[in-house]
Amino acid sequence: MIHLDNSRALVVYSGGQDSTTCLFWAKANFEEVHALSFIYGQKHVHEVDLAEEIAREAGVGFDKMDVSFISRLAPNSLTDSSIPMDSEKPAGGPPNTFVPGRNLFFLSIAAVYARERGIRHLVTGVSQTDFSGYPDCRDAFIRSLNVTLNMAMEEQFVIHTPLMWIDKCQTWALADRLGVLDLVREKTLTCYNGVKGDGCGHCPACKLRREGLEQYLHTEDKTALLPTFLVHGI
Amino acid sequence: MIHLDNSRALVVYSGGQDSTTCLFWAKANFEEVHALSFIYGQKHVHEVDLAEEIAREAGVGFDKMDVSFISRLAPNSLTDSSIPMDSEKPAGGPPNTFVPGRNLFFLSIAAVYARERGIRHLVTGVSQTDFSGYPDCRDAFIRSLNVTLNMAMEEQFVIHTPLMWIDKCQTWALADRLGVLDLVREKTLTCYNGVKGDGCGHCPACKLRREGLEQYLHTEDKTALLPTFLVHGI
Repeated sequence: MIHLDNSRALVVYSGGQDSTTCLFWAKANFEEVHALSFIYGQKHVHEVDLAEEIAREAGVGFDKMDVSFISRLAPNSLTDSSIPMDSEKPAGGPPNTFVPGRNLFFLSIAAVYARERGIRHLVTGVSQTDFSGYPDCRDAFIRSLNVTLNMAMEEQFVIHTPLMWIDKCQTWALADRLGVLDLVREKTLTCYNGVKGDGCGHCPACKLRREGLEQYLHTEDKTALLPTFLVHGI
Repeated sequence: MIHLDNSRALVVYSGGQDSTTCLFWAKANFEEVHALSFIYGQKHVHEVDLAEEIAREAGVGFDKMDVSFISRLAPNSLTDSSIPMDSEKPAGGPPNTFVPGRNLFFLSIAAVYARERGIRHLVTGVSQTDFSGYPDCRDAFIRSLNVTLNMAMEEQFVIHTPLMWIDKCQTWALADRLGVLDLVREKTLTCYNGVKGDGCGHCPACKLRREGLEQYLHTEDKTALLPTFLVHGI
């Protein structure tokens, strides 16, 4: 039986605000951290280069995988430029920025990748607080997937979701607590239009990010923002 | 919400004995059947051409997908010619013919593919009776995956595993009952060495297949071989 190591973690890493915050959360919680990025047909594939840059600067291992079969499977506005993006969640279904199975594939691939390297711990930046109609960001899905992965390979992986129960304001608080607020603000790419840092300012991702930041910067008692279970010891 | 149709099924299809039997099982149970094959770095990639040939002859839709990222993820003897194949299950782990995550990826991709086409029913030829150390052939894994897929996409897929509780002898009985014993015997490829039909005769897959066939051909009361739930109405 392959031995999985408790001292190392693999972060599913896009170079965005959320996964970058998770990367530094992982650095604070594990001795050795690896980042794995995916090329899946996203419009702004240079986000993978930004991801690599941040990972290198953070001193963590970096690897990328081409999984562009995902974008061929189902049309969506994140990978198909001919589809205009939904700016709000439509009634009766997820927005067309939903890439069906994306987190399913990312985490499944991460698990096989981790198993080969003896890494037990997987980290992902999904959050059901900012749940915008994406079923694969919910806690119950992640837990179900964790069991499925363990059964598929007869291993005991542990998926960590540091952002699951916090909102964008708290995600900024976590970055600040980890000492990387400026880094996250300046170097990460969240914007649907591919603009680094503060972004285009118009797309839903930019609005969410900016509102969270403003809310955080205006909070008087910043230390009370985060749940204890998340920051205990860091 | 996308409407999933109960009259159609998608079969995860390799062109081997098991999935070909499942293909005809699906034809007996659904109005319209599609077959989906995967190119995943297998040594005998012409099995996909054989699969297409059988699917066309059977009058079912056929499609293939390149998922060769699977073979790059983890070394195994089915996709890497430099690794000699285990002929028996080693102690303490699955044999090196195990491709970690293979059924996880095949069924996950099949589900996204089916969702795009409004197909609810997925069929796979996995069996835990012939369970040779592959954790991703077990019934509990398939059920866990079914739940995970449904949560990932907020849909209600149904995974069918006609061979789950029967052995190779009974699989021949099922093919016979479906009227395709000769077709399965002559046209399918199960052999690890890539030889169609009765195969090379030496590899573990050929031995299992031949022993099952001989046992079936020598069975006096062939009608008693199959569980009722499997053949009711066909």
